[in-house]
Amino acid sequence: MLRRCHISVINGNDNAGRHNHFCDRSNPAMTNPRALAALATVACLSATAQAGVVTTDGADIIVNTNSGLEVKTADGETSFKLGGRLQLDGSTWDGATNKGSDDWGSDLWFRRARIELAGKSGDWGYEAAYNLVDSGSIQDANISYEGWGSMFRVVAGQQKEDFGMEDTQSSKWITFIERSMPTNAFETGQSVGLKLTGANDALTYSVGVYRAAIDADDNSLDEAWTGRFVYRPILADDGTLLHLGIGATLRNGSFEALGSRLARGGEDGNASKVQAAYTAGEAEELLIYNFEAAGQLGSGHIAAEYFIAEASDNEAAGDMDAEGFYVELGYVLTGEQRGYKNAIAAFDKVKPASAGGAWELTARYDQLDVDNDDPLMKITGEVGSSYTVGLNWYATQLVKIMANYSYVEVDKEINDQDDGNVFSMRAQYAF
Amino acid sequence: MLRRCHISVINGNDNAGRHNHFCDRSNPAMTNPRALAALATVACLSATAQAGVVTTDGADIIVNTNSGLEVKTADGETSFKLGGRLQLDGSTWDGATNKGSDDWGSDLWFRRARIELAGKSGDWGYEAAYNLVDSGSIQDANISYEGWGSMFRVVAGQQKEDFGMEDTQSSKWITFIERSMPTNAFETGQSVGLKLTGANDALTYSVGVYRAAIDADDNSLDEAWTGRFVYRPILADDGTLLHLGIGATLRNGSFEALGSRLARGGEDGNASKVQAAYTAGEAEELLIYNFEAAGQLGSGHIAAEYFIAEASDNEAAGDMDAEGFYVELGYVLTGEQRGYKNAIAAFDKVKPASAGGAWELTARYDQLDVDNDDPLMKITGEVGSSYTVGLNWYATQLVKIMANYSYVEVDKEINDQDDGNVFSMRAQYAF
Amino acid sequence: MLRRCHISVINGNDNAGRHNHFCDRSNPAMTNPRALAALATVACLSATAQAGVVTTDGADIIVNTNSGLEVKTADGETSFKLGGRLQLDGSTWDGATNKGSDDWGSDLWFRRARIELAGKSGDWGYEAAYNLVDSGSIQDANISYEGWGSMFRVVAGQQKEDFGMEDTQSSKWITFIERSMPTNAFETGQSVGLKLTGANDALTYSVGVYRAAIDADDNSLDEAWTGRFVYRPILADDGTLLHLGIGATLRNGSFEALGSRLARGGEDGNASKVQAAYTAGEAEELLIYNFEAAGQLGSGHIAAEYFIAEASDNEAAGDMDAEGFYVELGYVLTGEQRGYKNAIAAFDKVKPASAGGAWELTARYDQLDVDNDDPLMKITGEVGSSYTVGLNWYATQLVKIMANYSYVEVDKEINDQDDGNVFSMRAQYAF
Repeated sequence: MLRRCHISVINGNDNAGRHNHFCDRSNPAMTNPRALAALATVACLSATAQAGVVTTDGADIIVNTNSGLEVKTADGETSFKLGGRLQLDGSTWDGATNKGSDDWGSDLWFRRARIELAGKSGDWGYEAAYNLVDSGSIQDANISYEGWGSMFRVVAGQQKEDFGMEDTQSSKWITFIERSMPTNAFETGQSVGLKLTGANDALTYSVGVYRAAIDADDNSLDEAWTGRFVYRPILADDGTLLHLGIGATLRNGSFEALGSRLARGGEDGNASKVQAAYTAGEAEELLIYNFEAAGQLGSGHIAAEYFIAEASDNEAAGDMDAEGFYVELGYVLTGEQRGYKNAIAAFDKVKPASAGGAWELTARYDQLDVDNDDPLMKITGEVGSSYTVGLNWYATQLVKIMANYSYVEVDKEINDQDDGNVFSMRAQYAF
Repeated sequence: MLRRCHISVINGNDNAGRHNHFCDRSNPAMTNPRALAALATVACLSATAQAGVVTTDGADIIVNTNSGLEVKTADGETSFKLGGRLQLDGSTWDGATNKGSDDWGSDLWFRRARIELAGKSGDWGYEAAYNLVDSGSIQDANISYEGWGSMFRVVAGQQKEDFGMEDTQSSKWITFIERSMPTNAFETGQSVGLKLTGANDALTYSVGVYRAAIDADDNSLDEAWTGRFVYRPILADDGTLLHLGIGATLRNGSFEALGSRLARGGEDGNASKVQAAYTAGEAEELLIYNFEAAGQLGSGHIAAEYFIAEASDNEAAGDMDAEGFYVELGYVLTGEQRGYKNAIAAFDKVKPASAGGAWELTARYDQLDVDNDDPLMKITGEVGSSYTVGLNWYATQLVKIMANYSYVEVDKEINDQDDGNVFSMRAQYAF
Repeated sequence: MLRRCHISVINGNDNAGRHNHFCDRSNPAMTNPRALAALATVACLSATAQAGVVTTDGADIIVNTNSGLEVKTADGETSFKLGGRLQLDGSTWDGATNKGSDDWGSDLWFRRARIELAGKSGDWGYEAAYNLVDSGSIQDANISYEGWGSMFRVVAGQQKEDFGMEDTQSSKWITFIERSMPTNAFETGQSVGLKLTGANDALTYSVGVYRAAIDADDNSLDEAWTGRFVYRPILADDGTLLHLGIGATLRNGSFEALGSRLARGGEDGNASKVQAAYTAGEAEELLIYNFEAAGQLGSGHIAAEYFIAEASDNEAAGDMDAEGFYVELGYVLTGEQRGYKNAIAAFDKVKPASAGGAWELTARYDQLDVDNDDPLMKITGEVGSSYTVGLNWYATQLVKIMANYSYVEVDKEINDQDDGNVFSMRAQYAF
């Protein structure tokens, strides 16, 4: 801390003349050059001669720009954080994954562009995240109360419902460019509601009741009850982890289809889906369960989830079933380790340890089955599965470059084809 | 300021060895432990050993996060402030206040969600506030000149017109969850225009000419001339206040109706209104006057306003009259006092003095009369009045929790009922 | 740096008593008032007694609010910047420039209102700029890599295409309220793409491939290849400059018209255009060249550009030609000089040197010729030219007030008139 200091700082100030005067022989401490150097060292905390002084008129403050901008009081009472994320994606896909007439579909677009504010004041916190794409919409807007400790945190407003490990994980730090097909098919997304959540080293839980998001196109979600429980038999200081969890969500509203895009990385317009869709009526209730497991050892991690869903109460047609699972593997070649957040029971970022950044190899198998034999349902793809390999480069703490290749198969041909390929790249800046 | 300092700071720096050397017996000041401690105290202004240094490359800067983030130069020449407000409301209403078919209407939604920027550079200032709800719209966007002193401030761009004490007060610090019916009925809102405003301890004035807001759905306002004059016979250092004011606005455009929602806290869609609406033609001129009075003594405040309006120049139908008033009382149980801003002649926040926050009891009676006997007008409710009681908890300087109950009466039955009840709650984070 | 320091700082701290004790006669340095003053000087880096301390928990940080807010680490590795621009315009126009039925058209509106974020992390940077007007849209959203030095910078995402000197210059610091007619007619605007750009003292280049912007109303641009090359034979330390450049853009998509508004400062709705428009079919290819030259000597600058364009591949109609040029002059009366940015080869702001601000006189002649004799084209105005004079007041580093008058002529009468006048004013706050 006491660096870049020169004796000239003392001599360079406005009273230099007087200082020279007072350094008389009668005081050995003041005439000893080493003593003077020590005083100079003491003096020049804020270093360079032309630098101005930064103070605060309230409680002591800590500033950092590790990621965007964070300002907090040293006593931890108040904080303010401004950040955001930019994800620029390029993707190309063919065969069964391509709905269009060309051999290869392709797109270049911003997958996510958000500005994010968060802060706290005493026991109260807030989050506000705004989507810049799609002419603007609110991603998160909530107020939380943390006065009962980390085991009983209340969040009110628009927020993640916390269902499924991969869906709960931040989109900034997901292992692949797109989440797996079952996570896409059964994601609960952002909703307006009230959540009670808590975590310690061994346990994370979240229960809440929700309704449709503020900017939801339709109000297709009337009410949802969602819970998630994760137990960590192993969580060592060296990052060794065993994570086991279950979740459930019961949703009332109108549900027309269950499914997921196949060409993850493409837009809805020209990438095909594995999907079951009602041709008459709508289900009014949707019940989904999931089971999740994850582990980390050194630089390697594994994660797997299984989902099973049933849409019911369609007056015109029968119940609609869907299920799916994925298994993913990741290994950081440069020796770093994925972070893990107890508060949301999900993996976090890889922080590069060296100037060259961190490199991670990844692989995933996922499958989504929407096979139903009701004549009032239109089934696309029936069972979709994909084999994905990827390479992630964490260039700096804020910049991640990702490349993914997927080989995709469907049981029921799409465009007379039963397989396809998807190449994707992402440049991400998360500040 | 010189706290949390340990002698280890000196010994912990890169030159620790040399320092030990120079502490030889020949210099008693340097070998005396108390003297060394004093030097160490002098040294460690920025406290902890791992803390880095924050400087500026320009004029000295003051940073604070009392509310969002503020950075200003110590000479007062330049400043930048980033903040916002989140208001999450829950409300339920019945009887005459409920337009819907159910016994009780209810809603949970963000009443306001805004990001706000403001700053100054020399004599010039700006404000930019953006609404996140409703797919985004500009709330404020204006540039001001303050070079002629606080009695002659010019504001150009989208801004509040300054009409009525309750409407001029910030929505962050209004006494009730919703402003009174007459304030809703006669509010001028945000408009694009040019305002001259000034204030000293005794007087506040504002005169301006305006047109419709940037994001106005229609351009129903062609031109408005609006003025407000407030005199404070009493404004003591202990907060004792007597405030007397008048205002007027003359508006050209197309005006179809005059009225206000009854179930304040509900959305337009399912809460009923007291309203007069033309069934033929539109008024092209609207003239509104108001009279306002307010006082504060210790922890109690009182405020009242009376409005009278006439819409005229409808080629098809006659003139439309409306009038209304409210009286409100507030008492801060924990002994704090409402702030009051001379610049806008309106009450401001209650700053909690203790860790438990501040608690305020409130009560209001308001009435809106839109009775007209022109056969080309549709009259709803005719005369509406409501009795409201409330409790405000200022949990921290940034967090306010509000609860309101209103008993509402109408002269002309709505849904065969002449009264109703409204329960509302708000969680507000104003950063 | 070591200013505003008083001996009372030492005596005013919590341990004042002890300090007095340890200042005993046995240590002359500590009892000598001048020595004590020196220590006090040393102590009070952050000055006033009530000021709190600002530190960082990471690398040393430099904060400034010269313009908005900038926070960067002292090692240059990480930075974050938040700013924006507000441009409030008033304008009135008559004769050939007025499409409406009145003698004079007029408007008061926000020409631009943006929030802008930018930052860097190691070799990577980003920009995100959001338009508040028009219900919000993305202006810029890109990620850049600067690891190969300033001669080889890669920018991916939505960005300026860099075509034409006046179009490449920031809209914050253009010489006139509106860019010239040919620049408006042939501007490439913001597009999504990949650019390679570089600059040293003598050379600036930029080559890229692009597609339509994220929020483009239509996808009329399928693909564009755009390049610009600027050579500076003279670039002296005193600002003396000679700038010579060429550019070209080849664009595939659908192009219906070529032209520009005449009443620069008015909205499309009621200000007339010089324009050639197809009445049948659309051109599928557009090729534009430009030549640019600029110079600066002392407080004066001159700039000129010539453009020539051809739209072709219209299956129904013939090729459409257009050309145009402008010459502009500016002289800063108060002796300052325009900045110039090598990185984009364009003029930058005038920084006022004194408290009264900087004043700049400007003049421009511009011309746009869209004369074509194809019967399947509708030609408005045919050849438009305007003489503009202006006065810019750079009131502070962030505030600029502009006034422009233009006399406009057209070869082919509009509303039976062949000339018109335009008066415009702008108040700009660029933070």
